[in-house]
Amino acid sequence: MLNFDFQNPTRIVFGQGSIAKLDKLVPEAARVLILSGGGSAARNGTLDEVRTALGKRSLFEFAGVEPNPAYETLLGAVELARREQVDFLLAVGGGSVIDGTKFVAGAIPLAGDPWEILTSGGKAIKEALPFGTVLTLPATGSEMNNGSVITRKATQDKLPFSSRHVFPQFSLLDPTRTFSLPARQVANGIVDAFVHVVEQYVTYPADAKVQDRFAEGLLLTLIETGPQTLIRPDDYAARANLMWTATMALNGLIAAGVPQDWATHLIGHELTALYGLDHARTLAIVLPAMLHVRREAKREKLLQYAERVWGIASGNEAERIDTAIARTREFFEGLGIKTRLVDYGLGPEVIEAVIARLQAHGMVALGERREITPEVVRAVLQGAL
Amino acid sequence: MLNFDFQNPTRIVFGQGSIAKLDKLVPEAARVLILSGGGSAARNGTLDEVRTALGKRSLFEFAGVEPNPAYETLLGAVELARREQVDFLLAVGGGSVIDGTKFVAGAIPLAGDPWEILTSGGKAIKEALPFGTVLTLPATGSEMNNGSVITRKATQDKLPFSSRHVFPQFSLLDPTRTFSLPARQVANGIVDAFVHVVEQYVTYPADAKVQDRFAEGLLLTLIETGPQTLIRPDDYAARANLMWTATMALNGLIAAGVPQDWATHLIGHELTALYGLDHARTLAIVLPAMLHVRREAKREKLLQYAERVWGIASGNEAERIDTAIARTREFFEGLGIKTRLVDYGLGPEVIEAVIARLQAHGMVALGERREITPEVVRAVLQGAL
Repeated sequence: MLNFDFQNPTRIVFGQGSIAKLDKLVPEAARVLILSGGGSAARNGTLDEVRTALGKRSLFEFAGVEPNPAYETLLGAVELARREQVDFLLAVGGGSVIDGTKFVAGAIPLAGDPWEILTSGGKAIKEALPFGTVLTLPATGSEMNNGSVITRKATQDKLPFSSRHVFPQFSLLDPTRTFSLPARQVANGIVDAFVHVVEQYVTYPADAKVQDRFAEGLLLTLIETGPQTLIRPDDYAARANLMWTATMALNGLIAAGVPQDWATHLIGHELTALYGLDHARTLAIVLPAMLHVRREAKREKLLQYAERVWGIASGNEAERIDTAIARTREFFEGLGIKTRLVDYGLGPEVIEAVIARLQAHGMVALGERREITPEVVRAVLQGAL
Repeated sequence: MLNFDFQNPTRIVFGQGSIAKLDKLVPEAARVLILSGGGSAARNGTLDEVRTALGKRSLFEFAGVEPNPAYETLLGAVELARREQVDFLLAVGGGSVIDGTKFVAGAIPLAGDPWEILTSGGKAIKEALPFGTVLTLPATGSEMNNGSVITRKATQDKLPFSSRHVFPQFSLLDPTRTFSLPARQVANGIVDAFVHVVEQYVTYPADAKVQDRFAEGLLLTLIETGPQTLIRPDDYAARANLMWTATMALNGLIAAGVPQDWATHLIGHELTALYGLDHARTLAIVLPAMLHVRREAKREKLLQYAERVWGIASGNEAERIDTAIARTREFFEGLGIKTRLVDYGLGPEVIEAVIARLQAHGMVALGERREITPEVVRAVLQGAL
């Protein structure tokens, strides 16, 4: 096991009716800015439920945080929060709203250029406004971690940051609030959570038995539960299991003490920034090709993944790895998510464009062994055509 | 899944060399009381390493916290801490030292009778001194939770308490610090962690797939790694896996959203209080008999346990349950821990004595369904003779 330093102070209040707990969780005298997304939280009644729970507190609202939350948009929330002397933020939405709220929380007390939060990877944040979240979309895990990804539309930069100051104080997870999600978003969330786990699990062996078993448990749950949530949107048990799995997939726990990859994500970010593809769809495109190209470096963990997650027992090593990758691709496709660039109207022209963007961002040696050079990215995208 | 409220703010610094991090984790101006146990931390150099890491801070020491930490002993630490105006506590040891430190942390600022911490189950604690731990024995999970069990020798009361104020601020887990442990303590720790998981897993189904998979992962790791730590005491990977498993077994995570039993522990506490048996040995005695007596109420989870943990696929339901219980008993015996009262020189006389103690403590309806009445305890202990 690798040495590690793990801490996650976020409080999770889970279950039907949990939104009512806001009244106990937000300071009584708080001036609260509620951040939300494209309007679904307003339409399905979640925002009303939130306002009711917050009672007589001074409330301000900032709607319209978009998927791949935009720096340009979020600066508006920073300005509003400063003007109204807001002292508590509440994100009501999915990963984009929560990621955006983390940026706003760090930017409000910042004296310099807020973009430095991104260029410094989060180091520019020395303090942040406290905030909580009401999660409406299981996917990114942002509700229980201190990471965020922000896009600057003007320059097509999509960059991550993290800071110990931007853990949510609490997150409320009510599975019934996810019943009305469009199937496309649910499927995206399943793929996103799945790939989060794979990035922390299919690397090289590090004698970390608990982390491996936990990762496998999350993948097995996604395989079992994911399709159920699409077939029966109001199946509480399935929704609850999906929601908790997505949270556990990226809260630092399965990452503690093991190597991590994240090359699929970083390549995917560039595809989103350049062509506007949904985040999860970029992962579904890149991951199978990545596993194929990196099959030697990942051999032992791919074999373990084949056996423990997909129950593949027959065939020689190469065949078992092939089958595991094929099953992964079939799982994504079965959720309605296409796994090749051509399915999205993209062709070989993306290859050099993505490589150029990665190079511009200094990302020229990715993956758990820093072996994913531009040449490897080229092979991966070639395999994803 | 049941509704839940989960938060665990303890920071874990894991790995060889982690004790040196004390210098960054303990406030520079702190007046520190170091609590330790029977002398092994002094003999194997851990205490020296701790003193060196703490540098020029004002240090006070309180050694001699015994297994099943005694209220009477701990009052001495409370007195010393008050007299010397200590403002930070550091537990160096296993679960007993850490449990004792939690009591001391809560008792120091308490105006009334410290025993009320136990009679109130922890509610009497309104604030506590901050403290950290240096773990030397993987077993109880106390290093990453807010629970504690204290024994009052004068009255043979062994009672648990918990409070949100007594989470350790940090815990340092260096697997090399466990190499020199006596085999008896290592084996006890494996059984303790195993039974912690079973108490949170072998209950009744609650559609909590992640929690089940995590629990199974911890049990599988104990089965795989436990014996290795006894055969090769300096196998770092095995020690590291055992250490992290024991921590994860009782940090609240696998308990979130599922029913919990704990009857085996509460009966075991009375056996320790009355006859001085090691805590883990009482669990090894009670658990197999408990699973046998409660086989109907626990039927579905026992079958799942048989299949996923022990790989038992053949036989009818009753046979699979019998085999799973037998394998559990064999696992404990294989670690050198006997599983019957007679092995410890005890006979039928314990039955009514234990029941009388449970009744005196108001514990007359235990278990995940509150169905374990004195009659059921009688049947369990009869089966453990």
